[in-house]
Amino acid sequence: MTIEQQAQVKNFLLKWQNQVCENISEHEADKKFHIEDWRHGAGGGGQTRVLEAGTTIERCGVNFSHVQGKQLPPAATLRRPELEGQPFSAMGVSIIVHPCNPYVPTTHANLRYIETQTNAGKPIFWFGGGFDLTPYYPFAEDCIHWHEMAKQACEPFGTDIYPQFKKQCDEYFYLKHRQEARGIGGLFFDDLNQWGFHDTLAFIKRVGEHFLLAYVPILKKRKQHIFTEKERNFQTYRRGRYVEFNLIYDRGTLFGLQSGGRTESILMSLPPVVNWQYNWQPEPNSPEEKLYEDFLVPRNWV
Amino acid sequence: MTIEQQAQVKNFLLKWQNQVCENISEHEADKKFHIEDWRHGAGGGGQTRVLEAGTTIERCGVNFSHVQGKQLPPAATLRRPELEGQPFSAMGVSIIVHPCNPYVPTTHANLRYIETQTNAGKPIFWFGGGFDLTPYYPFAEDCIHWHEMAKQACEPFGTDIYPQFKKQCDEYFYLKHRQEARGIGGLFFDDLNQWGFHDTLAFIKRVGEHFLLAYVPILKKRKQHIFTEKERNFQTYRRGRYVEFNLIYDRGTLFGLQSGGRTESILMSLPPVVNWQYNWQPEPNSPEEKLYEDFLVPRNWV
Repeated sequence: MTIEQQAQVKNFLLKWQNQVCENISEHEADKKFHIEDWRHGAGGGGQTRVLEAGTTIERCGVNFSHVQGKQLPPAATLRRPELEGQPFSAMGVSIIVHPCNPYVPTTHANLRYIETQTNAGKPIFWFGGGFDLTPYYPFAEDCIHWHEMAKQACEPFGTDIYPQFKKQCDEYFYLKHRQEARGIGGLFFDDLNQWGFHDTLAFIKRVGEHFLLAYVPILKKRKQHIFTEKERNFQTYRRGRYVEFNLIYDRGTLFGLQSGGRTESILMSLPPVVNWQYNWQPEPNSPEEKLYEDFLVPRNWV
Repeated sequence: MTIEQQAQVKNFLLKWQNQVCENISEHEADKKFHIEDWRHGAGGGGQTRVLEAGTTIERCGVNFSHVQGKQLPPAATLRRPELEGQPFSAMGVSIIVHPCNPYVPTTHANLRYIETQTNAGKPIFWFGGGFDLTPYYPFAEDCIHWHEMAKQACEPFGTDIYPQFKKQCDEYFYLKHRQEARGIGGLFFDDLNQWGFHDTLAFIKRVGEHFLLAYVPILKKRKQHIFTEKERNFQTYRRGRYVEFNLIYDRGTLFGLQSGGRTESILMSLPPVVNWQYNWQPEPNSPEEKLYEDFLVPRNWV
């Protein structure tokens, strides 16, 4: 049962990994994904794919991993203390795209499948994941398109799903110490098994598919937008927030580092070039201020 | 009693803050420290001093803060669970120097004084702090000088003090997920009150003084060393480790962010320009490899 379910999930995840890489590669004439297989000390392994220093893509990482462990790490059991000390199997694909052009948003997507057991030895599973968008110089129409795709992904599963997972996304990708949203959100869910294995997997597949429908058109539309050093500096400055979020708060990053994951594959999510400036403030009425005031706040986009 | 002790510590810390700024300013003809006073929501405040974009110093922050709180944050009570829920007063100066030249090491120093009470209402205090050095292209003679100064600072307090605090420094400034030391260490101590208030403060003063005796000669000696883009890139790459350490592990950073400190003053420790490269490895027998193999390992320098 478990073996067959794992095979189905794995099959889909590997296909999705391929698909994402194909869709991204299309925008690069000379650069290809560098592929690396790795083994995990405690059991399992994965495949990291990275494309760097392209003309459109500054860094894109598409990472598959399947690891087993003797006990769930704190990043999982803090949320579910009743599972402390239980062995687990975790499988997932994580995607990060850091584009060169500040007019193209950074995006992140993740789909994961966990199997473990209760104290009483009863096997349990859940899915988690979602996708979110982090623009620097956003276009309202892109944000609407992004959230429309998120909504469409959820629709067959009930009209309450999108609002719920959208809200969870806004809450999750929030930098408490800055009192700032990381981006304009999308979908975020965890502990998902309410529809049974078959239907929950069907949902996961829709999320995977709609991620590409959501992101690729924005990438195509904005990748040749003209920009100057000023916009580039703002992009590298804002990327600092991405680093802060991933290293201070991100459950996936902490889960990975705590469970002895492969550091280079986990931290592949960090942006290639970043700057921090002390107490930087946007000019009044500038596009940079507009980002903070109109976009980095929870909004109903659809 | 407490008020008088706090005044003595404050007096010293403010003097040290001035002294450090004077010693750093000497290396800049045109740039001065930008000074900002701030208030803390829960009580207290501080003064942040930042010098940026100099010819020798890319960023230097020298931050005084004195904050009160209704309960010690997790970064303190995880270590001392018996103090959970106790009100506190925390005072300190934090220093970070990110030099322009990759041949000049980054340095960090901190001295702090905490007052709180036990469950039974008994007032307690402790000092903490230390200094450490993070070179990119190190010179063995500089490392020896650095540790000689650290040792001299401790000498009047017993010959066992330097080895103990040096070891604690090696253990503390360690990136577990990289299995790498952050730098070549120095001194690190916490919960220090064993010599009583008067003598412990005398020790703290020696540490403050010896920090300048340790760092300033290295800064002077190396600030005009010739370097190329290659060394600069390695410096900005290695600065990524600094970011990883401060955001994932550093007790002071987490204490500050968790206790509602001023984010810009706390994250002033982050380097101005940073790059991450996927799975970067040093060339065999290069100076970069030498850093990893000969310096970023615990060593007896004196």
